[in-house]
Amino acid sequence: MSTQSSRNPPRAVVLLSGGLDSATVLAIARDAGFACHCLSLDYGQRHRIELDAAARVAKTLAADEHRILRLDLGAFGGSALTDGAIAVPIDGVQSGIPVTYVPARNTIMLSLALAWAEVLGSHDIFVGVNAVDYSGYPDCRPEYIAAFESMARLATKAGVEGGKLTIHAPLIDLTKAQIISRGIALGVDYGLTVSCYQANDQGLACGVCDSCRLRREGFSAAGLADPTPYVLKT
Amino acid sequence: MSTQSSRNPPRAVVLLSGGLDSATVLAIARDAGFACHCLSLDYGQRHRIELDAAARVAKTLAADEHRILRLDLGAFGGSALTDGAIAVPIDGVQSGIPVTYVPARNTIMLSLALAWAEVLGSHDIFVGVNAVDYSGYPDCRPEYIAAFESMARLATKAGVEGGKLTIHAPLIDLTKAQIISRGIALGVDYGLTVSCYQANDQGLACGVCDSCRLRREGFSAAGLADPTPYVLKT
Repeated sequence: MSTQSSRNPPRAVVLLSGGLDSATVLAIARDAGFACHCLSLDYGQRHRIELDAAARVAKTLAADEHRILRLDLGAFGGSALTDGAIAVPIDGVQSGIPVTYVPARNTIMLSLALAWAEVLGSHDIFVGVNAVDYSGYPDCRPEYIAAFESMARLATKAGVEGGKLTIHAPLIDLTKAQIISRGIALGVDYGLTVSCYQANDQGLACGVCDSCRLRREGFSAAGLADPTPYVLKT
Repeated sequence: MSTQSSRNPPRAVVLLSGGLDSATVLAIARDAGFACHCLSLDYGQRHRIELDAAARVAKTLAADEHRILRLDLGAFGGSALTDGAIAVPIDGVQSGIPVTYVPARNTIMLSLALAWAEVLGSHDIFVGVNAVDYSGYPDCRPEYIAAFESMARLATKAGVEGGKLTIHAPLIDLTKAQIISRGIALGVDYGLTVSCYQANDQGLACGVCDSCRLRREGFSAAGLADPTPYVLKT
């Protein structure tokens, strides 16, 4: 599928969390011929082990660069992922917007990616949002991504000067099983990734939170072995 | 002009830089009856004295809260305000986009304001962008603000659940003289604010950078005394 043979491939900024989805996105962006500049945000999340996973994934998938930017979103509170006073749900039964929602997280991450893209002269930003498993999150919907792209084209030099800017969300309408199958075909080692909302210090996944449940079900539906190291053998 | 007499006034997030424009915006938001939660971003800017000014302004204009969020945009480089390798222009003659442009700065600041607004249950964000003096900045134009507002309504719980979200940019089509006249009428003490791109450690303005020039001309055009403490008596 690689169509880019130039010695100076176009640059892309890839938002990399260290989880399954964004690792797949990085593999897709590389396969499309982009030089990948990966950005992770250290936003005071509980699952900091993800940042170590992001570094491993960037290296293994031959990213050109990986930067971690620190921003203490925990100062605002309001989410189970940053606020110690709200419990992470483990029962898989929720309606509406999950309490694991981090306010404006994708907007903040895409904005930072936009800043870096402008400095790099890049017109392409890749993000692993998914509207299937995360239908409760407003900022994972196609109409949100389209609106961000429209705004970003008005916000930047590249847009003003007639250039282009594209927000690529290649997973947006895929099931977890489809994402995993795509990544395996592109050589992603999912044993390096961490999706768990409350992985322990050794990077072992809890096996029971919503994120673990979706991941397990994805491997099962894809008919593939789950390489995730779990604490609980359930 | 105050129309709000409730004991629980609506909350607004006000982006406060410590400069003349955002101080005026805070006064306008207060006058409109909002409880003002002020946000300053410490983004590795050279003119850190601005952050001290922001704290003074927030206190003097009776903001309910002032938070400073640290984010090292300097890691991306690309602007005279964050990158030590690019000189701040002092001749006032420029065309196109100024080198003092910080990539995606307003997008990042509005995104952070959006996150805090969501946690606070606020539907109102105030920002001091101005399309008259800063016509070279893509993210100071009315069409940009409108596009950000559209995106923000899709990004958030408040939007999804039928609430509203408004980006207020009350200075967008005012001249500097009009901004100053409005602020004076609302009791803003501009001697507390710092606009200079390269103010010294005592908060004295250089008097010659583009920002100082615009400020001087504004007071002059408004027929008001300029309370700015300058290094140079030019």
